Amino acid sequence: MGTRTKGRTAPANGRAAPGRGRRPDGEGGGARQAILDRAVDLASSEGLEGLTIGRLAAELGMSKSGLFGHFGSKEDLQLATIEEASRRFVGEVVEPALREPDGAPRLRALTDRYLDYVERQVFPGGCFFAAASTEFDDRPGAVQERLRGAIGAWLAELERQAGLAGVADPKLLAFELYALVLGANSNYRLFGDAGAFDRARRAIDGLLP
Amino acid sequence: MGTRTKGRTAPANGRAAPGRGRRPDGEGGGARQAILDRAVDLASSEGLEGLTIGRLAAELGMSKSGLFGHFGSKEDLQLATIEEASRRFVGEVVEPALREPDGAPRLRALTDRYLDYVERQVFPGGCFFAAASTEFDDRPGAVQERLRGAIGAWLAELERQAGLAGVADPKLLAFELYALVLGANSNYRLFGDAGAFDRARRAIDGLLP
Repeated sequence: MGTRTKGRTAPANGRAAPGRGRRPDGEGGGARQAILDRAVDLASSEGLEGLTIGRLAAELGMSKSGLFGHFGSKEDLQLATIEEASRRFVGEVVEPALREPDGAPRLRALTDRYLDYVERQVFPGGCFFAAASTEFDDRPGAVQERLRGAIGAWLAELERQAGLAGVADPKLLAFELYALVLGANSNYRLFGDAGAFDRARRAIDGLLP
Repeated sequence: MGTRTKGRTAPANGRAAPGRGRRPDGEGGGARQAILDRAVDLASSEGLEGLTIGRLAAELGMSKSGLFGHFGSKEDLQLATIEEASRRFVGEVVEPALREPDGAPRLRALTDRYLDYVERQVFPGGCFFAAASTEFDDRPGAVQERLRGAIGAWLAELERQAGLAGVADPKLLAFELYALVLGANSNYRLFGDAGAFDRARRAIDGLLP
């Protein structure tokens, strides 16, 4: 499994710290991006509901009114934070896996990259989506809808690739892969047990055709 | 999968609503139990950190000072809530499974009961432990320790039974079972997809010797 490090500042693999250095152009874009980087990190550790404009302003040394200029409401901030987390997920997990052919190699790459991204702490609090979906599964509204969309897209891509891999029940395999990587995230976050990544990889190897 | 209902009030299977009717004797025991029943239900939906003495007092129509008489601090309340959730889990999942022989039949019963307990909403907000562990995996302290103890005991029993079932790698099988039931809880909670229980059962059947 190579030399992986914890913490986002200086990954041993030489990749740039994720979520940085891709700031959109335009007036205020850099500031907005810096705010969202911090918002995603905070939310992955402390929850998306705890992410208030006041809390974030204090963290960034900004005024609340300055932050309100970027995000009109707490919900707008939460939605923008989910968008930023999705961008980080796609950049770290999905895009690198696109180099592999459709089917079993793509599924192995997607799940392997997911496990790697949890272990490298692309989000300091573990998988942002695992945390946020647990938090919002009882709270109907725009935030829950956005999370459903993001996680639903992940499940749908696993299922599509499972179909391309020719398995008998693509929906079953997609569920198994989803569960195994989620289980590794949970096991690692709660117990600090990095062996969970290896177990998840071996379990996935046993399932892929 | 039979006729399962949502909601705890009147389970179609005729079981008494869990967590009720087993109140400890002794002065104030009934009141404390009623408080904890409500605390567990609230925490499973809204999080263990959101469970303040003020919030719970308002829910129960009690005074904050009355609640302080039962629980001296928010942390004491959180710890007592975890104990009550564990009691409910053991009564609903572990004890019924003890009727099955050690090894594969016990593993099937433990995981089947777990899936059943999520579907019957023994906790209205899905698995209490899945929610609380996600919430506290970044918050070191007594609450996190207690959650580690409870979830660690579940994993250890799965591993012990996997050993008795004679599989080559009991730790791997325990992880896979843990992940599959957690995945079903997550999938059901976020998407309301009851098919996740069936998929988890089929995946487990494929793993057990």
